Amino acid sequence: MPRWEPGARERLQATTLALFAERGFDATTVAEIASRAGLTERTFFRYFADKREVLFTGQDVFEGMFVDQIVAAPADTEPFAVVAGAVRAVAADFFPAERRLFSQQRQAIIDATPGLQERELLKLAGLTTAMADALRKRGTPEATAKLGAECGLTIFRVAFSRWVDGSDGEDMAAIVDTVVADLRGLTAAAR
Amino acid sequence: MPRWEPGARERLQATTLALFAERGFDATTVAEIASRAGLTERTFFRYFADKREVLFTGQDVFEGMFVDQIVAAPADTEPFAVVAGAVRAVAADFFPAERRLFSQQRQAIIDATPGLQERELLKLAGLTTAMADALRKRGTPEATAKLGAECGLTIFRVAFSRWVDGSDGEDMAAIVDTVVADLRGLTAAAR
Repeated sequence: MPRWEPGARERLQATTLALFAERGFDATTVAEIASRAGLTERTFFRYFADKREVLFTGQDVFEGMFVDQIVAAPADTEPFAVVAGAVRAVAADFFPAERRLFSQQRQAIIDATPGLQERELLKLAGLTTAMADALRKRGTPEATAKLGAECGLTIFRVAFSRWVDGSDGEDMAAIVDTVVADLRGLTAAAR
Repeated sequence: MPRWEPGARERLQATTLALFAERGFDATTVAEIASRAGLTERTFFRYFADKREVLFTGQDVFEGMFVDQIVAAPADTEPFAVVAGAVRAVAADFFPAERRLFSQQRQAIIDATPGLQERELLKLAGLTTAMADALRKRGTPEATAKLGAECGLTIFRVAFSRWVDGSDGEDMAAIVDTVVADLRGLTAAAR
């Protein structure tokens, strides 16, 4: 068997998600995943540290994309527009329509497994901190940086959940635009 | 020793927080807490299921206060004003100035202990879900209920962090008002 397997990573991801859906997260073993994917356990561990990381791989890249977008926004852009623009750009790039099935399966197994929910919440808390740091780097005052980052998380969470459940169509960029408009409308309502 | 100890609960809480600060969460035992508080372990367990619950006790009451406020708001109040008003009322009630030292100590030990951070994030996620459910009960449409609940969490998190770090004074109700105004201003900025 060659050390390099074309498409091995994607095959392992798809197989892992399918097994989690069938048996649950806890009852699934790496041996089963590798066997069903027609690969060795050693190959699995070349791509993922453990079965949980199949769901959380790429977090640094994901966070880094938000940070890059925020730092690179024109200097005269207002903080809210900066984070809204960052969420729009990253979401459109990271969640194309063909990724939706994977995201749905991933979300279903997270929703069913408390330990994974905690991991997901920690990941999103890390994203919020990273966005606040990126705003500070632009010279956004401390209080606004924190609030702006929380708004960014809200936009992302609400848009992602609408995209995953299909209630607002399949195009993430369009969904983000709707959520941003909804958020502006919600907070603008007088009483 | 009588079964009922006046002030035992508060004494156990203060002692637990002091020991967590001195030794860290993991190294502190219930035996030490009880001994320093001049009480038995049995008395400790009459009030708390374990040492972690000293930090998270009262969560149901806390969540229930938000829900009650949201459900009881006048029918013609807009969703954003409903959640903002709920956060203001609960925060003012739950976090009087004399509670700030406890909240600061609690936050410090949570920030220093990853397992407690996860527990805190789960608690806040539960609060968001409860607020969304309460908005739905008022007849708020699904999409707005989710977004409104996320806004409520943002207001609470940002106000609480300003109150704990003292950057915005000591009066929680006034801090919540500032955060709500900041959030309105932030999202209203055009570009």
